[in-house]
Amino acid sequence: MAAPSSFVSAQRLWDSLQAMARFGATAAGGVNRQALSAEDTAAQAELVRWGQATGMLASRDAAGNLFLRLPGSDASASPVLSGSHLDSQPTGGKFDGAYGVLAAFEAARAIRAAGVVPRRAIDVVAWMNEEGSRFAPGMMGSAVFAGDRPLDAVLAAQDAQGVRVGEALAVQQQSLAHVPLRPLGGAVHAFVEAHIEQGPVLEREGYPVGIVSGIQGKHTFRVEVTGEAAHAGTSQRSERKDALLAATAMVQSLAAAFHDVEDITKFTIGRFEVLPNAPSVVAARVVFSIDLRHPDTARLRAMSAQVEHLCAAARGPCAVNVQRLSAADSLEFPEALRQRARAVADRLATPWRDLPSAAGHDARYLHAVTPTAMLFVPCHLGLTHNEAESATPSDLAAGTRVLADLLLELAND
Amino acid sequence: MAAPSSFVSAQRLWDSLQAMARFGATAAGGVNRQALSAEDTAAQAELVRWGQATGMLASRDAAGNLFLRLPGSDASASPVLSGSHLDSQPTGGKFDGAYGVLAAFEAARAIRAAGVVPRRAIDVVAWMNEEGSRFAPGMMGSAVFAGDRPLDAVLAAQDAQGVRVGEALAVQQQSLAHVPLRPLGGAVHAFVEAHIEQGPVLEREGYPVGIVSGIQGKHTFRVEVTGEAAHAGTSQRSERKDALLAATAMVQSLAAAFHDVEDITKFTIGRFEVLPNAPSVVAARVVFSIDLRHPDTARLRAMSAQVEHLCAAARGPCAVNVQRLSAADSLEFPEALRQRARAVADRLATPWRDLPSAAGHDARYLHAVTPTAMLFVPCHLGLTHNEAESATPSDLAAGTRVLADLLLELAND
Repeated sequence: MAAPSSFVSAQRLWDSLQAMARFGATAAGGVNRQALSAEDTAAQAELVRWGQATGMLASRDAAGNLFLRLPGSDASASPVLSGSHLDSQPTGGKFDGAYGVLAAFEAARAIRAAGVVPRRAIDVVAWMNEEGSRFAPGMMGSAVFAGDRPLDAVLAAQDAQGVRVGEALAVQQQSLAHVPLRPLGGAVHAFVEAHIEQGPVLEREGYPVGIVSGIQGKHTFRVEVTGEAAHAGTSQRSERKDALLAATAMVQSLAAAFHDVEDITKFTIGRFEVLPNAPSVVAARVVFSIDLRHPDTARLRAMSAQVEHLCAAARGPCAVNVQRLSAADSLEFPEALRQRARAVADRLATPWRDLPSAAGHDARYLHAVTPTAMLFVPCHLGLTHNEAESATPSDLAAGTRVLADLLLELAND
Repeated sequence: MAAPSSFVSAQRLWDSLQAMARFGATAAGGVNRQALSAEDTAAQAELVRWGQATGMLASRDAAGNLFLRLPGSDASASPVLSGSHLDSQPTGGKFDGAYGVLAAFEAARAIRAAGVVPRRAIDVVAWMNEEGSRFAPGMMGSAVFAGDRPLDAVLAAQDAQGVRVGEALAVQQQSLAHVPLRPLGGAVHAFVEAHIEQGPVLEREGYPVGIVSGIQGKHTFRVEVTGEAAHAGTSQRSERKDALLAATAMVQSLAAAFHDVEDITKFTIGRFEVLPNAPSVVAARVVFSIDLRHPDTARLRAMSAQVEHLCAAARGPCAVNVQRLSAADSLEFPEALRQRARAVADRLATPWRDLPSAAGHDARYLHAVTPTAMLFVPCHLGLTHNEAESATPSDLAAGTRVLADLLLELAND
């Protein structure tokens, strides 16, 4: 019997990525397909159609995660899961998330084409709201699936317009009413997530596949600076409580404190909202995000512990409230599963290297409940969360070939 | 004959201010009645009703300015104008602008009640979009009336949602179709604008009336910082073009450069918009406003000339574009008219003091085409552009009494 990898079609995979990128396509060639949006729903409906055309069984759970099942011969055996997410950043690209879902789908098609029925079922999965740009924090679907966050808490989260996840999910559920519900969670034999690297290493060094050693830790914060609205022309500096001046001083102070010469720390303030945001009114309030990452958990925790003090020290006449939204420390994927992935790549003569993931992924939450691995493929210049994100058909297929053979092997455990 | 001032009713004025404040009333007791909004239109319709009930003739011009005329005996004599504006900041108060319109309206009612018909007509006016918070820059109606800005340019200005002034004005015009149009501009004998001080001086020193000596200059800018979107977890600091880090460095650098120990300079960054504004995406673009004021034109121009250089020096790996939106230098109102206002206040035994206006007003543009004066009344703690803005019925009436007698005197010139 030929291995499933030999049935992986680079063209079919590429076409499916391009077809999926039409949902939420932006003028600049990227994708704006935020979680639980109409575009996200349309993308999921399309994936369900593709799955049904391939004879796979679609289902959804109460957290909005979508599954396509390739059945196994032993209905009592726990399934192997593989996938990622279909939602994107507001100015996202075609590959972040979508590649992991469609690589798993292509792998399933290849396994079916190889004429084998594995012992375990293989579930292709699209986790709900990985990006966290519309509803924060991200990785909602995988966190609920893995029992890390209660469903109720996730359903109560609101977007900037005050729409709750629960409401948006109910709307999506109506459009996907033809897809049966499955119970939340359940036993999983293993999880493998394919993803673009979102860094420059594989491309620069010429490896089509990366075996991910682990995920760097990430702590996030919401900082609210409260000042007082006042007239730009009349209020004196000494009397003002200018929330924008205080907040920008905090940003600069945090950036200086977290500046490491070795350039490993990732410090990002991506969201910064001003109220009332009018040119001739002193800002009454600023809310900004902090995203802080470092592969060394001790370093990450030490920086994280400084945030509140640094903000307070720069607050001037304003008040500041620092809220920690999440504190995920660094993690390492199990060596045994990584070794199986390397062995598959070696059998396929696919050059690989170990490398850490600087970005968070749904695999973080699955890791807590099942043996988990990640496969990376190169993306051009490491550019991601950007409409210019790009990857080559041949690298995308190389990663999918390793995935296909690895999934079959795991499904036959 | 008793002077009109003795017919000014503090209660009627106060009631009219409270009634007007219902249009766009906020939960916090302030007003959100931005230019050409539904609330602004409703407020104008109400003023038209009040004017008609008093026998005054309403009209509008092509720039959206609203007039209520108390006719004079000599139809060929140019009118005296008095008023201010009905639009507010998004988190504005009940008195900024509305007081000037309703004080002029109360003065007109008092003149009528006194049983005199002046030689010249008196036009109570509400200028379109003084605040400039929805459509920038502000003082659109008065600038067009005075011929300082072409109507076409003003009609083309857009709000944050891309709605043009021309479109919003057409919608308002439909609701006010029963109000006849009058030609734009025309000869004006004099203009007097009453306003709350928007500063703490009159209240602190116990003067119910201020005779405004002039208006401090104001230069405004739009700064656009262009970086590159990137993933918060993967992109290295050395490779990033973080528009938010660059923009916050500019804000801090400008604030430091314009810090004067004497605390006269007014430097405000009230608007600051980030794109894509997502927690895990490095900011690709920031656009912020600069509002810079100083009563000394030479000092103001010197600071203004530094803006571009200071922004460029702090731009880091980003690009920056600095656009000057307006450059109004300081001005002084004519001494002869100020002297007439002082004489009226003295006759009424109303304590007054001269003081400059730190804020810009529609009077700036009228000053260029007709003898112009401004009367200030105290506002509590100088708090303004703030929902907590407040003033006392007795101070508001004191200013209106001076205004009533001054308007009659001017209308009999």
